[in-house]
Amino acid sequence: MSQESTDRPDGDLRETGMSLRHDREWDYELDRITDAVAERDATSVGLQFPEGLKRRGPGVADDLRELLPDGVNVLISGQPCYGACDLDTFLMKRTDVFVHFGHSPMKESEKIIYVPLFSNVEVTPIVERAMEEELASPDEDPDVGLVTTAQHMNKFDDMRAYLEERGYEVHTRRGDERLTHEGQVLGCNYASAEVDADQVLYVGGGKFHPLGLAMEYPDKHVVIADPVNNVVTVADTETFMKQRYASVHKAMDADTWGVIFCTKIGQGRWEEAEEIVENN
Amino acid sequence: MSQESTDRPDGDLRETGMSLRHDREWDYELDRITDAVAERDATSVGLQFPEGLKRRGPGVADDLRELLPDGVNVLISGQPCYGACDLDTFLMKRTDVFVHFGHSPMKESEKIIYVPLFSNVEVTPIVERAMEEELASPDEDPDVGLVTTAQHMNKFDDMRAYLEERGYEVHTRRGDERLTHEGQVLGCNYASAEVDADQVLYVGGGKFHPLGLAMEYPDKHVVIADPVNNVVTVADTETFMKQRYASVHKAMDADTWGVIFCTKIGQGRWEEAEEIVENN
Repeated sequence: MSQESTDRPDGDLRETGMSLRHDREWDYELDRITDAVAERDATSVGLQFPEGLKRRGPGVADDLRELLPDGVNVLISGQPCYGACDLDTFLMKRTDVFVHFGHSPMKESEKIIYVPLFSNVEVTPIVERAMEEELASPDEDPDVGLVTTAQHMNKFDDMRAYLEERGYEVHTRRGDERLTHEGQVLGCNYASAEVDADQVLYVGGGKFHPLGLAMEYPDKHVVIADPVNNVVTVADTETFMKQRYASVHKAMDADTWGVIFCTKIGQGRWEEAEEIVENN
Repeated sequence: MSQESTDRPDGDLRETGMSLRHDREWDYELDRITDAVAERDATSVGLQFPEGLKRRGPGVADDLRELLPDGVNVLISGQPCYGACDLDTFLMKRTDVFVHFGHSPMKESEKIIYVPLFSNVEVTPIVERAMEEELASPDEDPDVGLVTTAQHMNKFDDMRAYLEERGYEVHTRRGDERLTHEGQVLGCNYASAEVDADQVLYVGGGKFHPLGLAMEYPDKHVVIADPVNNVVTVADTETFMKQRYASVHKAMDADTWGVIFCTKIGQGRWEEAEEIVENN
């Protein structure tokens, strides 16, 4: 999903994540990893980072090596990683302890350690701006849904408290069993936004999650409060939908169709791919 | 492996494979595939093509579908493929018959059909030119080694006969058990060039195989006769080795080293990677 903006000068990096207003620091929970290694007498540890944090991998591995006994190998996954479901099973099979950074737990396994990497960025300033700029005031409409991503779950109570103190009734829920936390959205799951409120506040970076959310609930007003880039916007599905329809329209002339299946365990849907082939 | 040429004008596509002097036609042996499907009552067929032939995949699939009974699914591998050892095991596990195009057999399996895709290009004209331009004459040195790749194995006897008729003593051998044919070279195996001759004629496209060969036998004069681009050259390892030494030199300043392992079954060497890590 991508949304183009035409009213910005070239070189404006807002919302691109390329020039962050806040430096982020992460807690890699190295103690938890070294404990697990000691407990299991492990001789190898695999590390998997999401795309945005891959560059930090070698540094984390170095820090970890200093804490681990000699003879324990640390291996870093080089495979692309987009989500908690996207485990590098190749590396997992070949290491005694497998650490998946940056996402909240999804699969149960004794071998896997999930290190969620909560951002240290403050969220109340951007929630305040969202209130002033895009949310209906509590007098107009006190009901607001609240969702965020794994990185900002540690500040979820702050967000809620801030809104409640200003007179909002905050509606949240835990989506389903794939979701670890109340109010958490995944790229594949927006059930936590199915609340009794016409406006939903998404606190977090990126367009992927809020656009997905807005498409699933087209009647809701989805306000994006990005605490990292310090930007407040409204999820606008129109541009994205136009691009999608343009693609569909272009494809109408085709005589032959291909169905592309992704081989990753958590990101491919073999049965659905087969069903599409069978029904067409 | 790549070799840069500086004495050519921009846009000269010789040796790039981008503008072929000869159109190649391939025999995809569809009958053999349909027979295998009938024999095994297969309901799914997987096709894997090397990179250079991937674009022809959908056409081959269409032709195959016309010959196969209704209800048989044809699936094409989208994974990169570089050699007979580079099997898409994911697709192989999920199909009843798995067809690997463009390479000669390497692994034994009841499920896999290897379709070698022999080129229909004539080889004697380019062998003639190689003789005139780069090989020592039979009077000077009658001994010549002869090697080629899977695609031109069907013309191996023609090459040999042509050279013998002109007075050469042609030295060939079958490298080892990984090699199917006498005189065949693989990117990882040049044993078939270990013959009693100071000059070796490589008939085939690309620089990868003849450069690898020339590096393994630095005392041999390796003549490249490319029947597809219609070019005769001599394998020059100097440029390549200079680039390699430049990289090594640049890397000498590094404090930290990474060892990258490829996860493909036939193209990664886990034990060697581990050994490198252990010994450094």
